[in-house]
Amino acid sequence: MKLKVGFLQFKPEFGKIKENTDFIVSELKKHKFDIAVLPELCSTGYLFENTKQANELAEDENGYFVKSLLSLAREKNCLIAGGFCEKGKDKPFNSQVLVSEKGIVSIYRKAHLFYKEKEIFERGDTPFNAVDTGKGYKVGLMICFDWIFPEAMRSLALDGAKVILHSANLVLPYCQRAMFARSLENRVFIITANRFGKEKNKKGEEIEFTGKSQIISPNGEVVLTVGRETTGLFSVEIDLKETDKNLNPLNNLFSDRRTDLYKISN
Amino acid sequence: MKLKVGFLQFKPEFGKIKENTDFIVSELKKHKFDIAVLPELCSTGYLFENTKQANELAEDENGYFVKSLLSLAREKNCLIAGGFCEKGKDKPFNSQVLVSEKGIVSIYRKAHLFYKEKEIFERGDTPFNAVDTGKGYKVGLMICFDWIFPEAMRSLALDGAKVILHSANLVLPYCQRAMFARSLENRVFIITANRFGKEKNKKGEEIEFTGKSQIISPNGEVVLTVGRETTGLFSVEIDLKETDKNLNPLNNLFSDRRTDLYKISN
Repeated sequence: MKLKVGFLQFKPEFGKIKENTDFIVSELKKHKFDIAVLPELCSTGYLFENTKQANELAEDENGYFVKSLLSLAREKNCLIAGGFCEKGKDKPFNSQVLVSEKGIVSIYRKAHLFYKEKEIFERGDTPFNAVDTGKGYKVGLMICFDWIFPEAMRSLALDGAKVILHSANLVLPYCQRAMFARSLENRVFIITANRFGKEKNKKGEEIEFTGKSQIISPNGEVVLTVGRETTGLFSVEIDLKETDKNLNPLNNLFSDRRTDLYKISN
Repeated sequence: MKLKVGFLQFKPEFGKIKENTDFIVSELKKHKFDIAVLPELCSTGYLFENTKQANELAEDENGYFVKSLLSLAREKNCLIAGGFCEKGKDKPFNSQVLVSEKGIVSIYRKAHLFYKEKEIFERGDTPFNAVDTGKGYKVGLMICFDWIFPEAMRSLALDGAKVILHSANLVLPYCQRAMFARSLENRVFIITANRFGKEKNKKGEEIEFTGKSQIISPNGEVVLTVGRETTGLFSVEIDLKETDKNLNPLNNLFSDRRTDLYKISN
C-alpha cells in the first residue's frame, strides 16, 4: 500500500491558539496527502511559565484545535496527527490527537516528560498501543522525548504500527540522527514533525527548537528532510511493503527476538 | 574510575587458530590497557562451509585460544574479550570469552545468529546479564548482530554494565552509525571490535567485512575509530562517571522508563 505522508514544520506563536490553528489549516488545505503530522504543542507553543498558564491554554476534544482538525480531515478524507495542551484534572497533558474523516481516532498523552515539562504537565497514562486507522494499516503515536526510550517505538512496532507519527519540539541535537537506529531495528517509517524558533517567558527561561523535520524509511534512509527554519507542509510517497520484518531469507527482526534471554521488564 | 580500553582490528586467516592467536597475543603484548576487545570468531575466521567444518575447528576452555588469552591476562593483569568457535553438543556456539588475570570471567554465546550462521551454529543460551569484572565495575558482552535488537544492550545496561564489549564481524553498513542511538539511550561506552578482509569458501560463498572498529561514549561521540583496513590495537582512556543516567537534573533515563505502558515482553 502506497501513501502520501508529510510533516508540517513551522514556528507557532506562543498562546495564540486560533492563529496557529488557522495557519495549520490554511497550509494543509493547499496539499494532498494521506497522513500529515504536526509538531508537539503546535496550537499553544511550548514554554509555559507554570501549570496555571498551561491550564488556561488547555483545550479538550471540543476545543478550537481539535474541532478544526476534525473539520479539515472530513473535508480532505485524510489522517492528521498533532500535539496540543489537553485539559486534565489538576494539570494538563502534553497530548497528541489523531483524527480522520470519521472523527477522533486516538489521543496519546506523552509518557516521558522532558525536563521542566514534569512541573507543568501530568505524565501520560496511555499505553504504547498501535492505532488502527480504519484504512487497512496501523500507525504509532509518539511525542518528542519518547524517542530516546527504545521501548516506546518497539512497543508500537511489535503491536503492528507501520508508520510512526512523531510530533516533536526538539531541543537536543540527537533525535534526527538517532532515528537511523530506530527505523532499522523496527523496520518502520518515522515521520518526525518538528518546530523551529525561540521562545522566552517571564521567568527568564529561553529555549530554541531545531527544525529539520524528517521522514526516514525502514532502511534508515532519510527520504525527506528540510532546513532548520523551513516553513510548510512537505510530503513524499512511501510504500508500506518496505516495513516487512525480514532482513534476509533467514532473519526476521521480530521473530528472531530472544525474549527468553532479555531482562527489560523493570 | 578511568580505564584504558581498546580494540584489536585485524584480518584473521581462516582455519589458522594458532597463527591468529599468536598474532593477537603478540599485538596485545606491545600495549598497556585495562580492557581489550577482539573481533568475533577471531581465532578461526568466519565463513565455515558447514557445521562439520566448524566442529573440527571448535575449541573449549582448554583450547589454544582461551589458554593463550588466560596466560596473557595473567601476565598483563587486564581484561580481554574475544570471539571464538566454542565446542557444543551437536553444533558449536558462536561465543565470546572474557578473561582476567584470575581466570575465565564469563562466556557469552551469541543469541541472535545472522543469516547462514543459523545453519552452522547452535543459538546461544546465555541471558543478557551484566558481568562483574571483580574490578569494581560491570561490563556487558555482545556479539555482532546482537546490536540490531535494542533489548540486548538494554538488558545489559539495566543490569549495570557500564562498558559494552562488542566483538563483531560486521558485513552490513549500519552498525557503526546505529551505535550512536545505542550509546545515548543506555548511557554506556561501546567498544566494537570488527575485522576486515574477504573470505571465500568451497561452496562459492564470499563475504567482506567492514573494519572501522570504534569506541563510542555515552554521549554518542566516537572517541576512537580507525580505517576500513587498519590493523592493530588502538586504545583510549575513558571515564566511567560519564555513564551516569541523569541527562539533566529532572531526567534519569532509567528511572523515567514507563514499564507500565510498554508492551515488549513478547
